[in-house]
Amino acid sequence: MVWIATVEDVTNIIHEKGIETFLQELIEVLSVDFSRWHEFEKVPRHATHLGHGVIELMPISADDYYAFKYVNGHPKNPLLDKQTVVAVGLLSDIKTGYPLLISEMTLLTAIRTAATSALATQYLARAEAKTIGLIGTGAQSEFQVLAHKVVRDIDLVKYYDIDDAAMQKFANNLAKFDIDLQACKSAEEAVVGSDIIITATAAKQQAKILENKWIQPGMHINGLGGDCPGKTELDLAILNRAKIVVEYYEQASKEGEIQHLENKDIYAELWELVTNKKAGRENENEITLFDSVGFALEDYSVLRYVYSLLDQYNFADKLHLIPRIDNPKDLFGLLV
Amino acid sequence: MVWIATVEDVTNIIHEKGIETFLQELIEVLSVDFSRWHEFEKVPRHATHLGHGVIELMPISADDYYAFKYVNGHPKNPLLDKQTVVAVGLLSDIKTGYPLLISEMTLLTAIRTAATSALATQYLARAEAKTIGLIGTGAQSEFQVLAHKVVRDIDLVKYYDIDDAAMQKFANNLAKFDIDLQACKSAEEAVVGSDIIITATAAKQQAKILENKWIQPGMHINGLGGDCPGKTELDLAILNRAKIVVEYYEQASKEGEIQHLENKDIYAELWELVTNKKAGRENENEITLFDSVGFALEDYSVLRYVYSLLDQYNFADKLHLIPRIDNPKDLFGLLV
Repeated sequence: MVWIATVEDVTNIIHEKGIETFLQELIEVLSVDFSRWHEFEKVPRHATHLGHGVIELMPISADDYYAFKYVNGHPKNPLLDKQTVVAVGLLSDIKTGYPLLISEMTLLTAIRTAATSALATQYLARAEAKTIGLIGTGAQSEFQVLAHKVVRDIDLVKYYDIDDAAMQKFANNLAKFDIDLQACKSAEEAVVGSDIIITATAAKQQAKILENKWIQPGMHINGLGGDCPGKTELDLAILNRAKIVVEYYEQASKEGEIQHLENKDIYAELWELVTNKKAGRENENEITLFDSVGFALEDYSVLRYVYSLLDQYNFADKLHLIPRIDNPKDLFGLLV
Repeated sequence: MVWIATVEDVTNIIHEKGIETFLQELIEVLSVDFSRWHEFEKVPRHATHLGHGVIELMPISADDYYAFKYVNGHPKNPLLDKQTVVAVGLLSDIKTGYPLLISEMTLLTAIRTAATSALATQYLARAEAKTIGLIGTGAQSEFQVLAHKVVRDIDLVKYYDIDDAAMQKFANNLAKFDIDLQACKSAEEAVVGSDIIITATAAKQQAKILENKWIQPGMHINGLGGDCPGKTELDLAILNRAKIVVEYYEQASKEGEIQHLENKDIYAELWELVTNKKAGRENENEITLFDSVGFALEDYSVLRYVYSLLDQYNFADKLHLIPRIDNPKDLFGLLV
């Protein structure tokens, strides 16, 4: 029997647990998994480029589970009243190869991305960081704010988006959470004076969402929007001033903000901070940057976390996707 | 909404349609798809080797659908009362990237393999072929026989397996079908005098399931068991006498019986016969060999065939694996 976790099942579990607790526990799971970095079989994602979009398979495995995510990217989908990016994931038992869980991953991808950003913030932001400057109030934004609340005492979020409706949506969605929200009239207003900068825009090509002159010593930047070849958000001058951390160099060097930099310009991979192989923030004046592109390990973590909750929260169903046959040579017997 | 086709759903559909009609229609679908060969984006399977087994993702796409199969191979699974190989598949809409169907594929893999063998037999066996010599009465065997009945007037199957219980199972499963079954005491007895030879054993390494001297002019051989590096079933001398057809040279040259041959020794890929680019059998004396290793195109075909039946046969369920949200920027709204 294979668990099938639908969108409703996942949202029900999150409601039962509470989104903040869910994020907190997921950050702990990610922390454990990033510290197991060398146990993972890491491979590049498998992409099928379609002209009008892309479909990717992102597999990864360790000595307990194998996981992969199916994810698309179809920029014209909104014209068809569909989402640009949707995803489903599968977790299987490495010992037998039997699938254990098939889950919606559209929502879980946003959640694991936010939890990973927060994990980086835990190691890179100043301990007393209290203010977030958020550029881009799209699908990622609320999760980013709530995940950051787990690792720092955030009391103010200054936010900006070129889309007024998206800003209003963001404010409405976070109204019931204990956090001050300050709408800004420009990216500059959101950034200047903030402790943690989060950029999560859908800007195409080489944008400069952040200008170098806004960036002050001591800031930590979570850059989320630079996530495929040719798509970056940050002024190169910022990268040159920053201590840069990535998830997985091999992938980030192709897809991330760092795609124009050399290996020597990168300070660390996230696992090196989590395992204390390298120090995170070392003083109050450093500018730090986590250049996040999304890595299969994070899908693995959120799938194994959801899997661990399924028995406890009795929402999802188990389906017979694998035949139970007493005699492996008698597959035909299923039809008799 | 994504269709989920469980083992019960798939067996119910096959029961409604009848296994012989199901095979017949699938052979037609495969024929159409092999004739569209150049429309497919073909890539090597993605394998994760685990020491105790392997997990593979087999993706393929055309201008209508993207498909992939998740399939494992864990030789020690029978010790845990589990099957060595299980599979699940996914079909998605190439235009939007949205998944359409997630299906059990353990049973469907056996069925699509048999249908593909029969498609090759249609082009390669003598028109009046009536007798099958079958070596190996495991999970593939009954499907092979029934698929071959679609393309030739088979009236006798001479069968042999080193496992008596497997032979008995085979005979019991096919008892109700209109076909004479003759149990043999050796592979030689099954092969000599037969028109179509099917080898479907689990022999490891370089076995010689068929001996060269048994093979007579005019025979067609469907070789199924040579399907991974180092695993072959046939005497090299047979290959040297045979007109050899493969599914996809790039893959067969690594995994098939032909792994010790040169490109020039291979007559054709199956699509070349289906499109009449090359002749199939050209005279009564040729020895022909279809060296089948299983290709992602066949998974694509069976998934799109099952998908086409789901509306008609109201067995499977549709589940919410993809969020429906009016505002793509409001993923968080799912939780509010």
